Amino acid sequence: MSEKLWNGRFTESTDRLVEVFTASHEVDRRLYAHDIQGSSAHVETLEKAGVLNREEADVLLEGLLKVRIEIESGEFVFSDSLEDIHMHVEKRLAELVGETAHKLHTGRSRNDQVATDVRLYLRDEVDRIIDLVRKLRQVMVDLAQKHPDWIMPGYTHLQRAQPVLLSHHFMAYYEMFSRDQERLQEALVRINVMPLGSAALAGTPFPLDREYTAGLLGFSGICQNSIDAVSDRDFMLEFSSLASIIMVHLSRLSEELVIWNSTEFGFVTLPDAFATGSSIMPQKKNPDVPELVRGKTGRVYGNLMALLNMMKSLPLAYNRDMQEDKPPLFDTIDTIKGCLAVMGAMLPRCVFNKARLESACLRGFLNATDLADFLVEKGMPFRKAHHIVGKSVAHAAGQDKELTDLTTGEFQDLCGMDLPGIIDRLSIRNSIDSRKSLGGTAQELVEQAVLRARAALDKEGLDKT
Amino acid sequence: MSEKLWNGRFTESTDRLVEVFTASHEVDRRLYAHDIQGSSAHVETLEKAGVLNREEADVLLEGLLKVRIEIESGEFVFSDSLEDIHMHVEKRLAELVGETAHKLHTGRSRNDQVATDVRLYLRDEVDRIIDLVRKLRQVMVDLAQKHPDWIMPGYTHLQRAQPVLLSHHFMAYYEMFSRDQERLQEALVRINVMPLGSAALAGTPFPLDREYTAGLLGFSGICQNSIDAVSDRDFMLEFSSLASIIMVHLSRLSEELVIWNSTEFGFVTLPDAFATGSSIMPQKKNPDVPELVRGKTGRVYGNLMALLNMMKSLPLAYNRDMQEDKPPLFDTIDTIKGCLAVMGAMLPRCVFNKARLESACLRGFLNATDLADFLVEKGMPFRKAHHIVGKSVAHAAGQDKELTDLTTGEFQDLCGMDLPGIIDRLSIRNSIDSRKSLGGTAQELVEQAVLRARAALDKEGLDKT
Amino acid sequence: MSEKLWNGRFTESTDRLVEVFTASHEVDRRLYAHDIQGSSAHVETLEKAGVLNREEADVLLEGLLKVRIEIESGEFVFSDSLEDIHMHVEKRLAELVGETAHKLHTGRSRNDQVATDVRLYLRDEVDRIIDLVRKLRQVMVDLAQKHPDWIMPGYTHLQRAQPVLLSHHFMAYYEMFSRDQERLQEALVRINVMPLGSAALAGTPFPLDREYTAGLLGFSGICQNSIDAVSDRDFMLEFSSLASIIMVHLSRLSEELVIWNSTEFGFVTLPDAFATGSSIMPQKKNPDVPELVRGKTGRVYGNLMALLNMMKSLPLAYNRDMQEDKPPLFDTIDTIKGCLAVMGAMLPRCVFNKARLESACLRGFLNATDLADFLVEKGMPFRKAHHIVGKSVAHAAGQDKELTDLTTGEFQDLCGMDLPGIIDRLSIRNSIDSRKSLGGTAQELVEQAVLRARAALDKEGLDKT
Amino acid sequence: MSEKLWNGRFTESTDRLVEVFTASHEVDRRLYAHDIQGSSAHVETLEKAGVLNREEADVLLEGLLKVRIEIESGEFVFSDSLEDIHMHVEKRLAELVGETAHKLHTGRSRNDQVATDVRLYLRDEVDRIIDLVRKLRQVMVDLAQKHPDWIMPGYTHLQRAQPVLLSHHFMAYYEMFSRDQERLQEALVRINVMPLGSAALAGTPFPLDREYTAGLLGFSGICQNSIDAVSDRDFMLEFSSLASIIMVHLSRLSEELVIWNSTEFGFVTLPDAFATGSSIMPQKKNPDVPELVRGKTGRVYGNLMALLNMMKSLPLAYNRDMQEDKPPLFDTIDTIKGCLAVMGAMLPRCVFNKARLESACLRGFLNATDLADFLVEKGMPFRKAHHIVGKSVAHAAGQDKELTDLTTGEFQDLCGMDLPGIIDRLSIRNSIDSRKSLGGTAQELVEQAVLRARAALDKEGLDKT
Repeated sequence: MSEKLWNGRFTESTDRLVEVFTASHEVDRRLYAHDIQGSSAHVETLEKAGVLNREEADVLLEGLLKVRIEIESGEFVFSDSLEDIHMHVEKRLAELVGETAHKLHTGRSRNDQVATDVRLYLRDEVDRIIDLVRKLRQVMVDLAQKHPDWIMPGYTHLQRAQPVLLSHHFMAYYEMFSRDQERLQEALVRINVMPLGSAALAGTPFPLDREYTAGLLGFSGICQNSIDAVSDRDFMLEFSSLASIIMVHLSRLSEELVIWNSTEFGFVTLPDAFATGSSIMPQKKNPDVPELVRGKTGRVYGNLMALLNMMKSLPLAYNRDMQEDKPPLFDTIDTIKGCLAVMGAMLPRCVFNKARLESACLRGFLNATDLADFLVEKGMPFRKAHHIVGKSVAHAAGQDKELTDLTTGEFQDLCGMDLPGIIDRLSIRNSIDSRKSLGGTAQELVEQAVLRARAALDKEGLDKT
Repeated sequence: MSEKLWNGRFTESTDRLVEVFTASHEVDRRLYAHDIQGSSAHVETLEKAGVLNREEADVLLEGLLKVRIEIESGEFVFSDSLEDIHMHVEKRLAELVGETAHKLHTGRSRNDQVATDVRLYLRDEVDRIIDLVRKLRQVMVDLAQKHPDWIMPGYTHLQRAQPVLLSHHFMAYYEMFSRDQERLQEALVRINVMPLGSAALAGTPFPLDREYTAGLLGFSGICQNSIDAVSDRDFMLEFSSLASIIMVHLSRLSEELVIWNSTEFGFVTLPDAFATGSSIMPQKKNPDVPELVRGKTGRVYGNLMALLNMMKSLPLAYNRDMQEDKPPLFDTIDTIKGCLAVMGAMLPRCVFNKARLESACLRGFLNATDLADFLVEKGMPFRKAHHIVGKSVAHAAGQDKELTDLTTGEFQDLCGMDLPGIIDRLSIRNSIDSRKSLGGTAQELVEQAVLRARAALDKEGLDKT
Repeated sequence: MSEKLWNGRFTESTDRLVEVFTASHEVDRRLYAHDIQGSSAHVETLEKAGVLNREEADVLLEGLLKVRIEIESGEFVFSDSLEDIHMHVEKRLAELVGETAHKLHTGRSRNDQVATDVRLYLRDEVDRIIDLVRKLRQVMVDLAQKHPDWIMPGYTHLQRAQPVLLSHHFMAYYEMFSRDQERLQEALVRINVMPLGSAALAGTPFPLDREYTAGLLGFSGICQNSIDAVSDRDFMLEFSSLASIIMVHLSRLSEELVIWNSTEFGFVTLPDAFATGSSIMPQKKNPDVPELVRGKTGRVYGNLMALLNMMKSLPLAYNRDMQEDKPPLFDTIDTIKGCLAVMGAMLPRCVFNKARLESACLRGFLNATDLADFLVEKGMPFRKAHHIVGKSVAHAAGQDKELTDLTTGEFQDLCGMDLPGIIDRLSIRNSIDSRKSLGGTAQELVEQAVLRARAALDKEGLDKT
Repeated sequence: MSEKLWNGRFTESTDRLVEVFTASHEVDRRLYAHDIQGSSAHVETLEKAGVLNREEADVLLEGLLKVRIEIESGEFVFSDSLEDIHMHVEKRLAELVGETAHKLHTGRSRNDQVATDVRLYLRDEVDRIIDLVRKLRQVMVDLAQKHPDWIMPGYTHLQRAQPVLLSHHFMAYYEMFSRDQERLQEALVRINVMPLGSAALAGTPFPLDREYTAGLLGFSGICQNSIDAVSDRDFMLEFSSLASIIMVHLSRLSEELVIWNSTEFGFVTLPDAFATGSSIMPQKKNPDVPELVRGKTGRVYGNLMALLNMMKSLPLAYNRDMQEDKPPLFDTIDTIKGCLAVMGAMLPRCVFNKARLESACLRGFLNATDLADFLVEKGMPFRKAHHIVGKSVAHAAGQDKELTDLTTGEFQDLCGMDLPGIIDRLSIRNSIDSRKSLGGTAQELVEQAVLRARAALDKEGLDKT
């Protein structure tokens, strides 16, 4: 009978098929460092509680360190019969330090242990993800500053709508990623709460000072109810939701890059180093990076769905279903880090095409709203102005003209009034600079927004150091 | 040609099939009050900007009020040819007040208008949902206080694990709903930001004081980038994610009620008023309410998926796809409100079965961990103790006994030492009261938790008034 | 106490909140005709079994007919206290025909009744959906035939890849919709199986001839196990999956229409009657229909998720969670029918732009593969040819030339051999016509494919009549 | 510059970050055997077309065989710079056989190559999955035959409803898995269609005999449109949908095992070899296998969502997003195979508890419907009978009796008539055996169903050999 740590009451060995089916160490071994970190704090707490003497504590700490070194050096041997990373560490510890190892699991259960490990791990990963999101905000500000007065068509329905500044467009993404960061930071507070000390589900009779353990591990709080502590996966669900929202933003940016990179749009050239070719078509340079980011969006959504499904209708407290939390969680972490990093590296090297962006503003009646607004200033109700401009657009389009190609007489006929200065008013530059309501695309406003963003990023940089 | 507000340049009427396919008023008409609220503030802002004079402003405000009254009295006539609630209101306003109505849409677009309406609406609904969640926290505290010392088996894997207090179990749900409330409150800050003034996507040339409008509408901030303002649906995605997490909690509670309500468990009797019968089986009294709550979980998840999918890969700024945001958002709001309300009403009337809960603690070796912990106190390493207790359980089970049925001699044989006082130590009551680590199920700790929760709820109650 | 049909053993009225929460008649009333159809067949079967005499049967049939007429004429009064459409019909029947109505529910339960109703209903709807899919196949063939020799760039990665025929592109969608239809037809066989006669879950002691009932209702088979019959929702899951795959196809087509309709691509002009304008921008004509179709894709996916979630982990047999099957199922039916119908109506009226499609083939080295293939024919290994053509493309691009702009000398330098006839070989028309492997874009192959498709559609038309 | 097979026109090496981000070989290397199988058939086809001479073909075939052996022996070296398994194989082939290798990719693209590989691979896996599903059907029939006359409570709403045979319950699952198998077999026909020969998207000018290739590879058909052939992932979506439906069934079975395995139900004992213990609670024996199966359901759903999302709105033809098809597809294959196998191995070793199942039928008025049916036989309308039985149940429950504990006088009072033979009629055995409508739980019907199933399985067994 293979030696399990829990099989005192069993009369039959675990079926090999079951060992393989239930083993999670291939997935959860990445938790090893946080498992050892948690166990080390548990050792200190057991010593403080008098369960271990100082000598035993030191033996265990040293042993745990050795296990960690073995794992990091690649010497460590994994086996399906030991189920998970926690059992692997404990088993090896026993081999290294002997019987004292058997005292380590006093006053805790795998239920609170694994929840603690994952929270420690996720806390670190969310820190890194926040850094990557901040990096992307930085990139957006850099791009805005690099192209301060470039103009482009703003689109709705993928139809040219009104001229905007390219920098304003970048700053829209700055806003999205800023919200992402804010949400992650708030979630981090809820992630960074310690379940350890809740044992199986009821707490433990050993006088463990949970506040002390939390302090050692850098937790900002402790779970207040032992049943909830081992049953709760909210922090994963919340993180996975926020990751999905980040992917919404990345997928939109990616879609724009793919479209802008088409020959027909020609707004951007991706760096060769971030594109790949075709196995058959020698001329191809494909926007693989944004395509893959876009494609990975579904994966992150799918992981969220997997977690929500898994947790649905589970009675309290721990159920083995919850072992299935790690594959989707880890995959989302890896995916989102990869996507953020590669986009952050690629965007600064993208080359935007000023001439194409600008010339695209010249066709498509992007100044139609300006004409309507001008008529409103002359006293016409907006709806009437809108209708007249609609007719004017139809009139001009019928002659394959833009509005600025119309004659004074045509304007008078169409609008029913004399419109001195109308051609100047309809210039792209004027269209942009007139939009001075807060948040608008007027250049001075965008420049202010860039400065505010820069200041915010600088402050965060200082706060971190 | 049917009269659209935007068809100046069109030469063909909208196909009837398309009118029906694109019409959203059946869904978005519930926004009417917030649409009128937003328009009224826009009127004031236009007046402040000098676009409207005071008289015109008053005419519009009065007209908007009339429209609202017509809708609320049921007189209002809806038509597919007018697409959405916004067009309905504006069209009717024109009928009521004439040409002045055509000035209302100055400096705004449906893009910023609809985003503003939905944020106003969702803000109010989230307020209500927070109240319902708070109500449920209250119910959990009440239930905990009503059953302060009732014991029950704590379960893991739906197997009896360790005895806990029923009140501790209720307080686990208190923790979940408290986190839900906290998340909703944080999301509310991000919902309560104003897009109005961003117009189509570029801002507006009219000197609209957006801070003033925001003040009138009670927004705590304004969207800082006009392109982002009309493209952003993060606030819906975030809300839908949080709603899904709430449904995780409600589905778990529902699952427990369904299982506890089975004849086999018999832990709870649902009120007749909250159950229904069978069309064929006269004896049936079914737990329909928790079953439906459980079933509606998928619906809320599905709505989240719908929104995430819809937003994926949309280029900036507005795209018509985004009209599809309302059905899943509204359905989630309705569903979550219904589920929270019905659970909040049912739970206080559920009757728990003290005898069944208590007797269930007597079979299943729920005190096995206590024996192991006792052996640890006697100096045995936990792993060894665990193994010995496992063997003891197997030994007792073989004779159809519980641990407390074993003789002193048997304990000595199994554990290899004399264990005076062991039977007392293994009592359920002792098991519970020994778990005094913070967050544990010891009665004094649970009572303190209840008092803390009560104080928190009282404080919130005061803060609200 | 309100009069329920099942409350013999209840001592308390249903709470009003619960009546509203559990009522489904607003959703399931659309099943009325199929409910009455099913009940009518049940009446005949009860008569055949001797449970009803002929007179009673006739009274019931006549009463059911009256109920149907009342519902269709709008006279029928619905009430939350009657839960669902089935109770409404039965209650009204009792009012109309008296005590005999109370014999109707003999030998059946709502469990098998509702499963039967939904299958009958879905069978009819799938028939209609198949017709709409077939219509779209027809549209694709018509479009292919209307533009037999138009050329366009085939894209991969939204990059121009190789020239293809527009008709070949349409026929790609023909293939997709043909698979959709095939899948629906296979699913229909599994939908069209009768649960009636399974009663609550165990079958019934009344000697009901289920084969006879199935014959009356046009079912092609009967459920073979009574527990499964009332627990099974596979047919909904399967249909919802197939609907999601249809939406994949429609969303791809929609995405193409949106992109092709952009000013930058300019490949298609949508009919005015299928587009809408902007409330602020008078020049806009937006591709709302394909955008909405694209947006509704998420909705259909979300409904599938809702159903899969709802069914997960439900113990046998019926659980009230399953009432939640109808909103997502019905919404998917409505959505898919709307999308198929509107696309089928719009596509024939879209105007494709021959000049733009053709000129887009002239830039972007779409004939690079042809050069490589030519070199292979001259004996060069493909990988080497691919590499040389890559270099040639870089060389030409450096001079802002296409391959056909290179001189004979340049070709010789680049390819290391003389290439007589190369310019002809690199023409678009030759590129297309050379692709004669089965399924390729050569015009004669596409024309054959169109003829095959036409013949298949004609045959289906005959088979239907 | 690292040597890519497609970088003729590139002037910059691929960024290392991009190589890692875009590399798929860790995922797609499992396709190696099918890639080599496909390439080998392509070699034969090229030879038939005269593109290769026999000698070249033999060199390539031998080289491909060597590559395969290297991979299977573990000698093969993988590298991120080679992207995917296809490039790895081709590169290594070139090292082994020299320049001839460069002719292999003639007339094909990675687009049709990878689609072909995945279809070959999935075909084989679906074959295995069908075998596992058939095995589970076999297990259900075995279990039904092993417990032919055991009785148990049939449940609805997890409330005891009517007595049924345990064998009938098993046969409900037989029906589910039979539908699963049927669906897989139909899907297999659509999987088994060959894209090869479609090249990048337009077909190829080389005279490849696609029917010949298909014959070599055992495909039952070829894709009829080259654009569709490389764009289509329907076969994955369909398979993933069917896998999700299988998981619905497995999760329901798992939920029942978990509930039945609780101390409270006590209907089943899982084999020790298929359960695991607790790290802290020595008495625990947890139903980990069904819990994990239940938990993995979300994973399979999530994978389906990932695929549906990924494919949404992709313009034709191939886009790099589609590389993301493999992780969810492969994970679903692995998961479903694992779940089917472990359930198939565990179920035959589960021990059902006859006494508990039977005694559970004695309490809870499971014969209430029988009484109602009896009254109907005596001429009472069913609704009236239902109401009277409801009252009778309430009456009996008030005295803590079952219906069979009532006296003749009580029956007369409650039902308003003399009911000779009623006690016999209300016996569980009679209840079961009376349900003789087709598909009902009467023992003779279940035995017939078992025989039919056995015959069907035997026939399939013969058909396979």
